[in-house]
Amino acid sequence: MSSPPQVEIDPALVERYVMELGRFGAYADTGVWRTVYDPTWVAATDQYETWCKEAGLAVHRDAVGNVWGTLKGSQSDKAIVSGSHIDSQRPGGRYDGALGALAGLIAVRALKEQFGQPKKTLQALSLCEEEGSRFPSTNFWGSRAITGRIAPGDAEAMQGYADETMADAMTAIGLDPGRIPEARRDDIEAFVELHIEQGPILEHADLPVAVVDAITGIRHYNITLTGEQNHAGAFPMDLRRDPMAGFAEIASGVINTAHRMGRPAVTTVGRCVPYPNGPAVVPKSINFTIDARHPDPAQRKILYERHEGLMREVAARRGLEIEWDYYVNHEPCLSDPGLVKTFQDAARAQGIPFMTMPSGAGHDSQQMALITKVVMLFVRSKDGRSHTPEEFSSVEDIVAGIRTLAAGLHTLAY
Amino acid sequence: MSSPPQVEIDPALVERYVMELGRFGAYADTGVWRTVYDPTWVAATDQYETWCKEAGLAVHRDAVGNVWGTLKGSQSDKAIVSGSHIDSQRPGGRYDGALGALAGLIAVRALKEQFGQPKKTLQALSLCEEEGSRFPSTNFWGSRAITGRIAPGDAEAMQGYADETMADAMTAIGLDPGRIPEARRDDIEAFVELHIEQGPILEHADLPVAVVDAITGIRHYNITLTGEQNHAGAFPMDLRRDPMAGFAEIASGVINTAHRMGRPAVTTVGRCVPYPNGPAVVPKSINFTIDARHPDPAQRKILYERHEGLMREVAARRGLEIEWDYYVNHEPCLSDPGLVKTFQDAARAQGIPFMTMPSGAGHDSQQMALITKVVMLFVRSKDGRSHTPEEFSSVEDIVAGIRTLAAGLHTLAY
Repeated sequence: MSSPPQVEIDPALVERYVMELGRFGAYADTGVWRTVYDPTWVAATDQYETWCKEAGLAVHRDAVGNVWGTLKGSQSDKAIVSGSHIDSQRPGGRYDGALGALAGLIAVRALKEQFGQPKKTLQALSLCEEEGSRFPSTNFWGSRAITGRIAPGDAEAMQGYADETMADAMTAIGLDPGRIPEARRDDIEAFVELHIEQGPILEHADLPVAVVDAITGIRHYNITLTGEQNHAGAFPMDLRRDPMAGFAEIASGVINTAHRMGRPAVTTVGRCVPYPNGPAVVPKSINFTIDARHPDPAQRKILYERHEGLMREVAARRGLEIEWDYYVNHEPCLSDPGLVKTFQDAARAQGIPFMTMPSGAGHDSQQMALITKVVMLFVRSKDGRSHTPEEFSSVEDIVAGIRTLAAGLHTLAY
Repeated sequence: MSSPPQVEIDPALVERYVMELGRFGAYADTGVWRTVYDPTWVAATDQYETWCKEAGLAVHRDAVGNVWGTLKGSQSDKAIVSGSHIDSQRPGGRYDGALGALAGLIAVRALKEQFGQPKKTLQALSLCEEEGSRFPSTNFWGSRAITGRIAPGDAEAMQGYADETMADAMTAIGLDPGRIPEARRDDIEAFVELHIEQGPILEHADLPVAVVDAITGIRHYNITLTGEQNHAGAFPMDLRRDPMAGFAEIASGVINTAHRMGRPAVTTVGRCVPYPNGPAVVPKSINFTIDARHPDPAQRKILYERHEGLMREVAARRGLEIEWDYYVNHEPCLSDPGLVKTFQDAARAQGIPFMTMPSGAGHDSQQMALITKVVMLFVRSKDGRSHTPEEFSSVEDIVAGIRTLAAGLHTLAY
C-alpha cells in the first residue's frame, strides 16, 4: 500500500450527477420518491449504468438488480467495493443512499482517469434497496442478496404496502426471484460506504467529513403496560392503577437515562397508543416503543439493563402488568480498524478536516460486514435533516467526502 | 315539614323492575345497549309508563319523550321531582341512569301506598337522554329540554354517529322537533336524582348510600405540544426538542398534582396521539387531553393553575411550542344545603349508614340546577365499575337508597 496522493474531484460533475439522478422520482421541489423496482428506479439504474460505461467501467447487473461498475485490477480478482443504495424514502431527498452510489462511481472514475489501472479490482455499486419503503420487511434487500441472507421463498412471502409481493415486483421488471442466490459474492476484500450523516453532529462541529468507526447497536422494544380502566371522574387517584402514569414515568426515565449517559447513547419513545384513548377514561393499557442505541457493546448492555430495570420497577410499584419483546435487535457493527486508519490517513493527506464518530442509523455496511471488512464515511447534513425532501449537503462537503473516499481506495487498490 | 317516618320498600319489586327494564336493549348476559329514540328505548319508556299507571300515577310524555308520572298534591302545584335517564352507554349496564328513573317511581309508589296523597305534588321522571351515545354533542337532551336549554334548530343541526340528525330520530318515532320548547318547566321546587356511584368510594368505606353535596367541576384540556421531528439514531439527545419528553413530564406532573392534592381532586390523561407515531422517529408533535375535576370552586382554580403552570414551564424549558384550549369547562354544581340536610336526616331516620361526598361524574342534576334546587343520592357500585355490562349494585343497597329517597321526599311533600 502506498501513501495516498492528491486526488482531484470535479465539483461540476458531482453537482450534475446529484441533480440528474434526483430527477428520477422527483418529488416536489427537492424531494425523491423512488422505491425499489418501480419505473423511476429502473430509469435511475439505467442512468447509473450509462455513467459507469462513460467512465470506462465494465457493467453488470446481478439477480436482484444491484448495478456493478468494475475497473479490473492487474494483480488480484479480490474487489474493493464502494457504493450505497439507490432507493429512497417516500418521500426522501436526493442524498440519502444515492450519494454513496454516485460517490463510488465518481471516485473510481477519477482514480482511473488520474492513476490508470489499479492492482486490485475496484467496483462502484448501486444497491437496489435499503429503506424498506415499498416492502416493509425487506430492507437491506440489495446487500442481503450479496451476503446470501435471502432464503428461498422470501421474495414470494414478502408483502408490500400495496397488494403485491417482492417476487411480483421483481418479475414485473424481468428479474427472476429463483436466481437470487446468484447475487451472492465471496470475493469482496473491503466495502466502503459514503453516506450523508443524517444528524447534526458534523454541522455542530463545523466539519465536512467523518470516518465512521462503528454502526450503533439497535434494539426496538415493543411494550404493553396494563392497568385498570376506570371513570375519569368517579375513581379516586389513590385507588387507580393507571398505565398512563406508569408510561409517563418510563418515557421520562429512559429518555433521561440516555441523555445522562452522554453521546452517542440515544433512546427514543416515538410511538404510543393508549387504549381506549378517550379523554374521560383512565386507560386500560398503553402500547409503546422504545428505540435504544449504542455503538459500544458494553455501554449498550448497560443502557438496556437500565431501561429494563426502570420498566420493571415502575410496573411493580404501580401495580401494572408489563410485557415486552424486541422486534429489532442488532448488535453494534464495528468498522475494521485498519480501514478506519486508512481513511483517516486519506483525509489528512488531502488536507480535509474530519472527525471519527459512530453512526446512529443503520446502513447496508452492517450487512456487508457479514462477508467482508467495512468502513463508512459521512458527509455533513444541513440541520441534521434526512428522510425528507429538505435533506441537503453542499457540493463542497461532498467533494471533500469523495476526495477522502478516492484517496483511501487508492491506498487499498494501487 | 315533618320528620320522616319509616318507609317500606319491597326488595322483590326493586329486583323485578331492574331486571325487566334491563331486557329492553339487553346486551350479552348483563349489559344494556339502549340509545335515545331507538326501538328498545321506545319499549322501555312504554314499560315505564305502564308501571306508573299501575302505581296510580297520572302519566304524560313531554315534547322530547321524557315520561312524567304524577301524584298530585293537595296544597301546591309546585312539584318535587325524582328521576334519572333511561338511555344507556353502548354498551352500558342495567343501573346507570335507569336505576334513578325506577327509584323515583318506586319511591312515589311506596309513599302513595303507605301515606296517601301528599301536600305537594310528587313526580317520578324518566329522562330521555343523558349519555350522548347516539348523538355525541347532545348529552343531557332530556334535562336540557326541561330547563329550556335547547335552541331552535339544534335538533336539525345535531349529527349522530350514523348518518342522521336528532330531528330525524325524533320524527321517526312521532315527536315534533318544533315543539321542543313545550317541554320547558318552571314549576319544579326540587329535583332529587338517585344514581349508582360509578366509583369505589362507598365500597371502600363499606357503606350502601351517599348523599351528594356537589357535582364536580370539569375541564377538558386539548393540548398540542410541538418540537422537532428527527431521526431516532442520528440525532443526539442533547440537541433534541422532543415533545414526547415534554409530554411525559407533563402527564406525570398533572397526575401527581391531583394525587397529592387528595380526594376529591382527579386528573386524567386518557388520550394521546403522537405524530408521526413511528418507533424510530423523534415525534414532531403530540396531541393529548387532560381531564381535571374538583367540586370546590377555589380548589378547582388551584388545580387548573398548577396544571397550566406546569405545562408552560415544561414547554419553555424544553424549547417546545404549546397550545391548548378547553372543549368542556363545567363549573361545579353545588347541591342545595337544605336538601342535603333533609336527605342526611332521612337516612339517619331509616337507620341507614351513609356518607356525604361529591360526584366526580356529570349528571342531569347539573342541568336541573339551572331551574331548581337539586340533590343526589348514590348507591354503592360493585368494584366501582360503570359504563360497562359488569356494573352492579345489590338489591339490599338499592333498597337502602330508595328508602332514603322516599323518606326525604316524604319530608319535602307531606
